[in-house]
Amino acid sequence: MTEDTNTPEGWGKHERPPSLFRRFQFGTYSETRAFLDRLETLSKEVEYFPDISFGTTYANVTVHARNTTDITQDDSDFAQRATELATAG
Amino acid sequence: MTEDTNTPEGWGKHERPPSLFRRFQFGTYSETRAFLDRLETLSKEVEYFPDISFGTTYANVTVHARNTTDITQDDSDFAQRATELATAG
Repeated sequence: MTEDTNTPEGWGKHERPPSLFRRFQFGTYSETRAFLDRLETLSKEVEYFPDISFGTTYANVTVHARNTTDITQDDSDFAQRATELATAG
Repeated sequence: MTEDTNTPEGWGKHERPPSLFRRFQFGTYSETRAFLDRLETLSKEVEYFPDISFGTTYANVTVHARNTTDITQDDSDFAQRATELATAG
């Protein structure tokens, strides 16, 4: 096991506060918006809402450790599913 | 005329890059989301999309100078209308 076990591919990790982050780039605003909509659906399903920064063609997603001390599998799973949503449809 | 003529009440101004910014705080996620939806409608109407950062109960809005050199009345008007949307309905 390495310390990056819980960091999904393509994501960065901050230690303070413990969080995962990734920038997603899109070609158009409607692609960006479609991603944000899918991410909201996921958030409602798992009852976790990440911090999101977005403009017309990008979205930065920050997933904070839900236990506030360490990234766990739950946080990592959320990030992984967000990645899948960015490439969906 | 002062240099703050184009800074709407409650907004801050950055010089580099020239932009207006404001944090809006909400009591619930659904209020935050309602604001973002109204802001999107305005953005489509005027064909300007600000940078937005949000979490469950806040949204930070940054309006960049559309001419890239100085905040103009158009930018200031957008910020003013965003403020009205935050307190609407």
